[in-house]
Amino acid sequence: MKAVQLRGYDRTPELVEVPDAHVRDPLDVVVRIGGAGVCRTDLHIIEGQWAEKSGVTLPYTLGHENAGWVAEIGEGVTSVSVGDPVILHPLATCGLCKACRAGDDVHCVQSAFPGIDRDGGYAEYLRTNARAVVKLDSSLEPAAVAALADAGLTAYHAARKAVAHLHPGKRVVSIGAGGLGHIGIQVLKAISPAELIVVDRSADALKLAGKLGADHLVVADGSEAQAVLELTGGEGAEAVVDFVGEGGAIEAGVRMLRRAGNYYVVGYGGTLAVPTIDIISTEINFVGNLVGSYSDLAELMVLAARGKVALHTSTYALTDFEKALDDLDRGLVRGRAILVP
Amino acid sequence: MKAVQLRGYDRTPELVEVPDAHVRDPLDVVVRIGGAGVCRTDLHIIEGQWAEKSGVTLPYTLGHENAGWVAEIGEGVTSVSVGDPVILHPLATCGLCKACRAGDDVHCVQSAFPGIDRDGGYAEYLRTNARAVVKLDSSLEPAAVAALADAGLTAYHAARKAVAHLHPGKRVVSIGAGGLGHIGIQVLKAISPAELIVVDRSADALKLAGKLGADHLVVADGSEAQAVLELTGGEGAEAVVDFVGEGGAIEAGVRMLRRAGNYYVVGYGGTLAVPTIDIISTEINFVGNLVGSYSDLAELMVLAARGKVALHTSTYALTDFEKALDDLDRGLVRGRAILVP
Amino acid sequence: MKAVQLRGYDRTPELVEVPDAHVRDPLDVVVRIGGAGVCRTDLHIIEGQWAEKSGVTLPYTLGHENAGWVAEIGEGVTSVSVGDPVILHPLATCGLCKACRAGDDVHCVQSAFPGIDRDGGYAEYLRTNARAVVKLDSSLEPAAVAALADAGLTAYHAARKAVAHLHPGKRVVSIGAGGLGHIGIQVLKAISPAELIVVDRSADALKLAGKLGADHLVVADGSEAQAVLELTGGEGAEAVVDFVGEGGAIEAGVRMLRRAGNYYVVGYGGTLAVPTIDIISTEINFVGNLVGSYSDLAELMVLAARGKVALHTSTYALTDFEKALDDLDRGLVRGRAILVP
Amino acid sequence: MKAVQLRGYDRTPELVEVPDAHVRDPLDVVVRIGGAGVCRTDLHIIEGQWAEKSGVTLPYTLGHENAGWVAEIGEGVTSVSVGDPVILHPLATCGLCKACRAGDDVHCVQSAFPGIDRDGGYAEYLRTNARAVVKLDSSLEPAAVAALADAGLTAYHAARKAVAHLHPGKRVVSIGAGGLGHIGIQVLKAISPAELIVVDRSADALKLAGKLGADHLVVADGSEAQAVLELTGGEGAEAVVDFVGEGGAIEAGVRMLRRAGNYYVVGYGGTLAVPTIDIISTEINFVGNLVGSYSDLAELMVLAARGKVALHTSTYALTDFEKALDDLDRGLVRGRAILVP
Repeated sequence: MKAVQLRGYDRTPELVEVPDAHVRDPLDVVVRIGGAGVCRTDLHIIEGQWAEKSGVTLPYTLGHENAGWVAEIGEGVTSVSVGDPVILHPLATCGLCKACRAGDDVHCVQSAFPGIDRDGGYAEYLRTNARAVVKLDSSLEPAAVAALADAGLTAYHAARKAVAHLHPGKRVVSIGAGGLGHIGIQVLKAISPAELIVVDRSADALKLAGKLGADHLVVADGSEAQAVLELTGGEGAEAVVDFVGEGGAIEAGVRMLRRAGNYYVVGYGGTLAVPTIDIISTEINFVGNLVGSYSDLAELMVLAARGKVALHTSTYALTDFEKALDDLDRGLVRGRAILVP
Repeated sequence: MKAVQLRGYDRTPELVEVPDAHVRDPLDVVVRIGGAGVCRTDLHIIEGQWAEKSGVTLPYTLGHENAGWVAEIGEGVTSVSVGDPVILHPLATCGLCKACRAGDDVHCVQSAFPGIDRDGGYAEYLRTNARAVVKLDSSLEPAAVAALADAGLTAYHAARKAVAHLHPGKRVVSIGAGGLGHIGIQVLKAISPAELIVVDRSADALKLAGKLGADHLVVADGSEAQAVLELTGGEGAEAVVDFVGEGGAIEAGVRMLRRAGNYYVVGYGGTLAVPTIDIISTEINFVGNLVGSYSDLAELMVLAARGKVALHTSTYALTDFEKALDDLDRGLVRGRAILVP
Repeated sequence: MKAVQLRGYDRTPELVEVPDAHVRDPLDVVVRIGGAGVCRTDLHIIEGQWAEKSGVTLPYTLGHENAGWVAEIGEGVTSVSVGDPVILHPLATCGLCKACRAGDDVHCVQSAFPGIDRDGGYAEYLRTNARAVVKLDSSLEPAAVAALADAGLTAYHAARKAVAHLHPGKRVVSIGAGGLGHIGIQVLKAISPAELIVVDRSADALKLAGKLGADHLVVADGSEAQAVLELTGGEGAEAVVDFVGEGGAIEAGVRMLRRAGNYYVVGYGGTLAVPTIDIISTEINFVGNLVGSYSDLAELMVLAARGKVALHTSTYALTDFEKALDDLDRGLVRGRAILVP
Repeated sequence: MKAVQLRGYDRTPELVEVPDAHVRDPLDVVVRIGGAGVCRTDLHIIEGQWAEKSGVTLPYTLGHENAGWVAEIGEGVTSVSVGDPVILHPLATCGLCKACRAGDDVHCVQSAFPGIDRDGGYAEYLRTNARAVVKLDSSLEPAAVAALADAGLTAYHAARKAVAHLHPGKRVVSIGAGGLGHIGIQVLKAISPAELIVVDRSADALKLAGKLGADHLVVADGSEAQAVLELTGGEGAEAVVDFVGEGGAIEAGVRMLRRAGNYYVVGYGGTLAVPTIDIISTEINFVGNLVGSYSDLAELMVLAARGKVALHTSTYALTDFEKALDDLDRGLVRGRAILVP
């Protein structure tokens, strides 16, 4: 089959012919790829930033946001059949460790991460396992939802945690209305009655946030914390979901928070630095967020099937992968780039 | 009545004769003091560190950890009668704001704090309100529990939050076995089946922790994070309750935490500084803790009445207040110093 | 002032001149009535059904669903000012008992219930206390929301409990689309992403439910449990909110429930009778629901101010109270009848 | 291998020679039995009461409370090794359905139940799967804990749910101090600071409850509800855990409940029948309880390893199975009967 493989760091991946993916273990599922998201992380992988962390052996196939159709199943698989349209949870988990037994998939102690530490979805077929495949509603095209598999799932996971405390009359701030943020905004509007304030540097991003239902739009121009305080009667917001996590966003974000409020860390890059006296005197909390669980992904697909969460995508043929990576690097992709074999 | 008042910063308070405390507002309660805790915060107040924050007008009476007997009640008070033994929640709250209506007393928007921003309990009588008085079981002496009103209540509040996730097989670390810590340890043992690891610099403090039921004792000598990892099979603990919050405790404490674990910030002084990538990749949380609610104090008194939580106290006559403050400053107090009028 | 008083059971109340309502206790608030809901309970009170339960002494003024403007406040009241538009929580609570301290107002051990056990709102003025008044947004007319004070608040309370478990992909059944039900339906749509199935005997009620956003409409004709099973893939719904509670609704409702599902009892009249083997083998729960808390009412008013929850009302002058009661008794009121002094 | 099989209803099972149990599916685990609990349910099975419900084909091997050592594992099993001592969760679950993915094992849509619907543990070997085996601490003998696998796990599950609301000062009633009850009592004391009231008809059972730490003992002689009300200041208890569920226990139990209290239904046989007016006016809840999850069993084994939960057992050789069943039927077993091959 065809696959786009990374054969060395800091050089362009190559489209090569590799042996077909096949079931190896009893719970394996092989998926015919319908769409694979092209993500900024892929650029970082090519540059070698993930080499040590992932420990992957080159060459290997990129692509960690995948959807398609079941092509082959192991003998222990009872939950999907060949032909089923599916989206892939990024992790193929063990199902037996303490975390898996509690439904907390992302803390599985022996998971595989196709596209990161083994062959991914820039290819015609991909091997994962039964615990990673979520069946799609017939109204959903795999290529249209593939990019929800990782970025979207992360945004959903954080928003869902926040919503547990967001009753009518509460205020939530979304810092960032970009890749993750614009999904988070749609999710917050779909599952919460709270008032939504969106903060972003970009006027275009804010315009999109407004269309997606944000109640207030705030330009991140240095006065954003003050603006949020004014919008909340001087109190601050009960929740801040920070999809940026660097470049001053954190400092401003913490100042937007109400006493006893919750700060959801999603974006990363910077450092959270807060004097402990400020944490205890206002009794605020900081909540870490990784990608969501399998159940989170299933729930997100329910919202997608109802049209409550949608992504703009630009489709590229698998053979045009170089152009997709290049466009992404140059900021020329509208929405998310999707490779279709 | 007699009262120990601060008449200027950076000078010794004075025992003076002041008008008796009396009910002013319908919900007021005047308490005859049975014991008032002498706290390190009192030393800081005398030095002027709290002058700006509290905005108190001098002279005023110190003492924010109080217990005694009800001496006079306002016309709207139905919950206590004259003569009832009581411990005082540190805050006299309004009962009408959003926070009060949710049982979240410490975030009341218009509370008074006797001993901090108005006359406190280094005196024969103190005025608070009906929302601050918790009736004591007949087995409890006011002077014996007074010091639980603030420090103890803070430790209880943090421990109670932590316990919600501490099922059998989970591990909790108490950083610090001193003032707050040794209460926290007793509370954790009384209300949780989790395995308790206590970390402290002092061998004496650890010895006490052992007597109070700690399952493992770890000397904070620079290798404490490593020691906790070893005690937890390399995983780290599900919860860390940090009663220190400065001087390297935080950095070590964060390293003791398991994936998806919770870090309870109680002590303060230092800065929490964690790269956001570390927060999201392990999905850990930081939970701020202020003093507990009225209900928390009522619960803590239940534990005290059953002998599950006890304090070592050294009693001083009110007239010996100078010696009490001096002993505290020089580290000569065994347990907590209590002024008895 | 004018008031409609019940002067004997089983006879028509009378419009009489009574002394003006005035503040008696420090936390009292006197409200000039803008609207008072006329409720089926009022008919039952007149018939004497509540005589023993309420223990009220005749004559007294009816009316337990009230809204208006603050006319006078006690010396301890800090949360509202004269002139503020307010809706009244049905209970005037003590604020000091265990339940009140936990924000659980309706279990207050010494509350008063104007309109039930003391003078209510079929009058020009009513006395309640500061803990019962929720300030209204300027967009809301007291007469338009008065009927949300009791029936609406009960529906909100039950729906809010249910929503805690209603993530995307879950199904909730509302049994009943009448008085409480049509509020419940609006609340469920406003605060939950779950799929909503509405069951009612009346085609008109179902038509209204459809307009309010119900996803599926089921006629309660004896086959309703079967219909719900079919709509849920044979599994049953994760939650059933039963606004009827009598006449076969319960038996059918329990059969609509999924394994591990929750049944919210709101309506009453019948008996819940379920073999314990059925409760444990499917591990289902039954959740009782009384009227909501003060915070619930504040939240409901947020939804009302945003136009998410609305009531049809028919206004009657206070002097036309007899016609209002009569119309209600004969089923001639469209929506809820409101008396306006 | 030797196995005790039921070859027809209403006749004594027989010890026969059957083919050895072996791995069939990739996640299968074969366990060499160390002990199998003899349970009242086994008597009911023999009488044919479960014939229709289980749909099992005769002959088959009895025994649904099992522990032993891993003897053989399927190719997909990574969580245990041959030789590991294990206790068996009663259900062998699929791991892929919605319930399994949420950690809610007992609602798995395609589980097997060895000893009920396929060959169980009255034998030398038993086949289950990797999702059912919990590794035992080296301090625990399989035969000593086998009977915790089902009855004990059910008691643990209910107690753990109750404890979520049982803060210091709350009261919990255990109805029953027999088979399930005496485990429940140990669990409640181990994981909760609440005051424990135990109600039972038998003076001996109450005596045992006292030894296990119950705070109050109440004879179920018709006045038990009144006695509980007196012990709780007329309020009733915040939680009632009903391990009996028949013969008047429910009626009395409901009267023991405080406003807003929770009633945990564990035992079965009778019918829960409560007027809906009583459910809503006091806002009480009824909570169904089936056997616990895999994680619950792992937690229970932690308590067992620490000596916090212990069972009295009487050991019988597998060949003496008839005597064990007979002794159980005649009430001659002290504690739980365990068959050891």
